[in-house]
Amino acid sequence: MIHNFNAGPSILPQEVFKQAAEAVLNYNNSGLSILELGHRTSTFQAVMDEAIALVKELMQLDADHEVLFLHGGASTQFMQVPMNLLDDKETAAYSDTGVWGGKAIKEAKLFGKVEIVCTGKESNYTVIPKDFAVPNDAKYFHITTNETIYGCQWQKIPKTSTPLIADMSSDILSRVMDFNQFDLIYAGAQKNMGAAGVNLVVVNKNILGKIKRAIPTIMDYRNHIKEGSMLNTPPVFAVYVCMLTLRWLKSIGGVAAVEKLNIAKADLLYNEIDANPLFKGTVAKEDRSKMNVCFVMNNPDLEAAFLAFTKEKGIVGIKGHRLVGGFRASLYNALPISSVQVLVDAMKEFAALNP
Amino acid sequence: MIHNFNAGPSILPQEVFKQAAEAVLNYNNSGLSILELGHRTSTFQAVMDEAIALVKELMQLDADHEVLFLHGGASTQFMQVPMNLLDDKETAAYSDTGVWGGKAIKEAKLFGKVEIVCTGKESNYTVIPKDFAVPNDAKYFHITTNETIYGCQWQKIPKTSTPLIADMSSDILSRVMDFNQFDLIYAGAQKNMGAAGVNLVVVNKNILGKIKRAIPTIMDYRNHIKEGSMLNTPPVFAVYVCMLTLRWLKSIGGVAAVEKLNIAKADLLYNEIDANPLFKGTVAKEDRSKMNVCFVMNNPDLEAAFLAFTKEKGIVGIKGHRLVGGFRASLYNALPISSVQVLVDAMKEFAALNP
Repeated sequence: MIHNFNAGPSILPQEVFKQAAEAVLNYNNSGLSILELGHRTSTFQAVMDEAIALVKELMQLDADHEVLFLHGGASTQFMQVPMNLLDDKETAAYSDTGVWGGKAIKEAKLFGKVEIVCTGKESNYTVIPKDFAVPNDAKYFHITTNETIYGCQWQKIPKTSTPLIADMSSDILSRVMDFNQFDLIYAGAQKNMGAAGVNLVVVNKNILGKIKRAIPTIMDYRNHIKEGSMLNTPPVFAVYVCMLTLRWLKSIGGVAAVEKLNIAKADLLYNEIDANPLFKGTVAKEDRSKMNVCFVMNNPDLEAAFLAFTKEKGIVGIKGHRLVGGFRASLYNALPISSVQVLVDAMKEFAALNP
Repeated sequence: MIHNFNAGPSILPQEVFKQAAEAVLNYNNSGLSILELGHRTSTFQAVMDEAIALVKELMQLDADHEVLFLHGGASTQFMQVPMNLLDDKETAAYSDTGVWGGKAIKEAKLFGKVEIVCTGKESNYTVIPKDFAVPNDAKYFHITTNETIYGCQWQKIPKTSTPLIADMSSDILSRVMDFNQFDLIYAGAQKNMGAAGVNLVVVNKNILGKIKRAIPTIMDYRNHIKEGSMLNTPPVFAVYVCMLTLRWLKSIGGVAAVEKLNIAKADLLYNEIDANPLFKGTVAKEDRSKMNVCFVMNNPDLEAAFLAFTKEKGIVGIKGHRLVGGFRASLYNALPISSVQVLVDAMKEFAALNP
């Protein structure tokens, strides 16, 4: 039994793997693999329609918010967002809460002016800034709701009068929030939503078409809205896996139900980190991510031994990112609490062996 | 038995479907699905390495040519090519041989000047232009080696002194050619190479870095070269399916072997089109595509009946694109000649029934 704590691509529901494998052999008894299915067929159109409808339902989106499945990961959105929304002389406000916010800022600077209105840099990104103001004339305010590498998360979404844009790659659909408060949300699918190779974009259509720049056809959100995410050949299989994962999420009760499970998983692990004399968390308690739990050992010399110890128990993917060191356990929607229990038990056992 | 003539996404080798399905359940006995495998693992690195090595081997690329697997389809490359290679005041030469060339031209105009040096427009794209000159000062010359919709194909690649760039989405790896004569080749994978959701780019690294424009990180080929196509999370499964398909191509003898099969398939079908009194080809004989065979009926009123007749025989995907009408049978690498024989037999049978 493998316990997969990968930061992404990461664990998906076991039933999704089964259904996806079956579809690769023979999609819905059509005699064709999902991989050889034309994207303009009514068969695939039904997949795309269901995926979009499930996102709208699970996120309770209003009629202004359009749902797109696009090529590329969040790294493409770092560029595509300012390309569509920020004119050369306009200013966008960005929050700097880690590696991913930093990458978004770098790309935005190619398209307009960027004002970094808050940063967690001084704390080495272990704290989410709370005291800051967003200029009223900013075109939009960009946040990364969860920082996958440093393991901090906005627990409270800031209220602003400017359009709010969020990179939700690593916590999309993991917790209840008013998704309509955002004017644009993007997320690489490969954590909570599906396989790598597709991007979810949710956009309030009213913010589009307000800049002077000529936008390349494939980068203009309006074209993708008009063509229902079929402007060009979509990543068919990746969209299908999203659809299956969204179906699963609905089947277990939707975002509210999975949030309860996610809180239980995170509490289980953070409680052990706080109670166990060998370990400590790296992030300020109030800003700890429920998706990516970062922790180190008080004695770093023991880390290699602990990693080997957990490997014996089938635990994979917990080596921390090199920027933080130590460990990172990613607790995405599909990870069962039983896997977290195996990790917690291993921590207890290792502590008993190393008094 | 289904005979899949889809224009793309399209048929892949049956063994690729089997291996891909197995990998979705349990990749190489790892206990993990390929969909939950971290892209920074040595396991996936081996997949990427093998896919790149197979492209280099099958295309016999020299050391200057780098192989990339990127997000997005050819439609992203329409933009990415001029963004990387064409400065605002420079001129690029483009050939206009159909829908796809036209789309490439539209995007290039956003980045610099475009000179259309030849066009098949007057012939409604049934002829590949032969008599034209490429200006010596053009930054590059762009061709679409095979026009998927109108069904014409460059049988002889033009010799020019300017760097040659080709969209090979629908005939990549289908015929022997000197791939090193191109400075940049791109191809959406979903026809001859794999599943939808990944792009192959082969680029001569010496043509990069020669423009003044600031290129967004994710769009700069140099960054992808430096990071070995792992600048961001790659479309893991789509790359894996490419690797499997490339392995299959090598196993049957490589490009030279598949070209023989492709010629045999195309000859079989075109010979029937030419011999059968009900049908006629739409493209000039010398420019006919061996990948996308376009044909119509002399009596268009019979077309619906013929389509229904072939459907009964398990033939799918032969309805022509709305711009051309009639029929389009796509004969990509993985399509067995037995499927073409079924179509040819159906044409004969239908002709006998409609004397």
